[in-house]
Amino acid sequence: MNKIEHIGIAVKDLEAAGKTYETLLNTECYKTEKVKSEGVETAFYQVGESKIELLAATNEDSPIAKFLNKKGEGIHHIAFAVDDIKAEMKRLKEEGYQLLNEKPKKGADNKLVAFLHPKSANGVLVELCQEITEEPERLPEGDEVWED
Amino acid sequence: MNKIEHIGIAVKDLEAAGKTYETLLNTECYKTEKVKSEGVETAFYQVGESKIELLAATNEDSPIAKFLNKKGEGIHHIAFAVDDIKAEMKRLKEEGYQLLNEKPKKGADNKLVAFLHPKSANGVLVELCQEITEEPERLPEGDEVWED
Repeated sequence: MNKIEHIGIAVKDLEAAGKTYETLLNTECYKTEKVKSEGVETAFYQVGESKIELLAATNEDSPIAKFLNKKGEGIHHIAFAVDDIKAEMKRLKEEGYQLLNEKPKKGADNKLVAFLHPKSANGVLVELCQEITEEPERLPEGDEVWED
Repeated sequence: MNKIEHIGIAVKDLEAAGKTYETLLNTECYKTEKVKSEGVETAFYQVGESKIELLAATNEDSPIAKFLNKKGEGIHHIAFAVDDIKAEMKRLKEEGYQLLNEKPKKGADNKLVAFLHPKSANGVLVELCQEITEEPERLPEGDEVWED
């Protein structure tokens, strides 16, 4: 893993939480983005080489809505940057870690992403993410983009 | 905030969790440390400019023991590196954030630390930490070290 790419924090009200984090981190939100396939809207804050990603649900079926209903606001996941998500998924699967995706999918912030089950990492939902370097329009949001 | 200094993860068994994270992060633990005043033992893993800090309780009164009993294993806190913890605490207090410490105290990894109440940060326990540059023996573990 190259670095902590971001920490995802589930919040109820993106605008209110955004003000809290802008003041806390003493930096402005540099991007907001909706990921329709996940039912989330996001706001990003840069801190060193990493980001804080606030996540709010846009519908009741969103994983974030379910998380909020069950656990309330708080840290939802840690994302680690990798160079080759496919190789890293293969390595971890062979080591016995449980993957939540068979193939990487397109996430927020122009990334290919995959998740490990929290049971595989002491209760932590771990995301792997790789920067997309191809033309974004070739990779429709939410689609499986990895073919052998 | 300069960077994410570390992410603290509460675990039941430091040795077992250490193996999980060594393989996951593909890096060896570079330090273990006990902080008697907090009732914790810790293991650190470098990821880019940040660290993963695994935290296990060494007694039942430890905040980590209480966290594990209440919530189970998982992310316990995010720590941000600051240059001047006293100034940052003052700024956040004036902005209305609730501090859990009136003064910084000595934490693990040769740091002065202070915490914000999770209510002030959407359910996230936030730690501020500043590298100690004085001689460590002048700053007894767990003592309040900031005097006006």
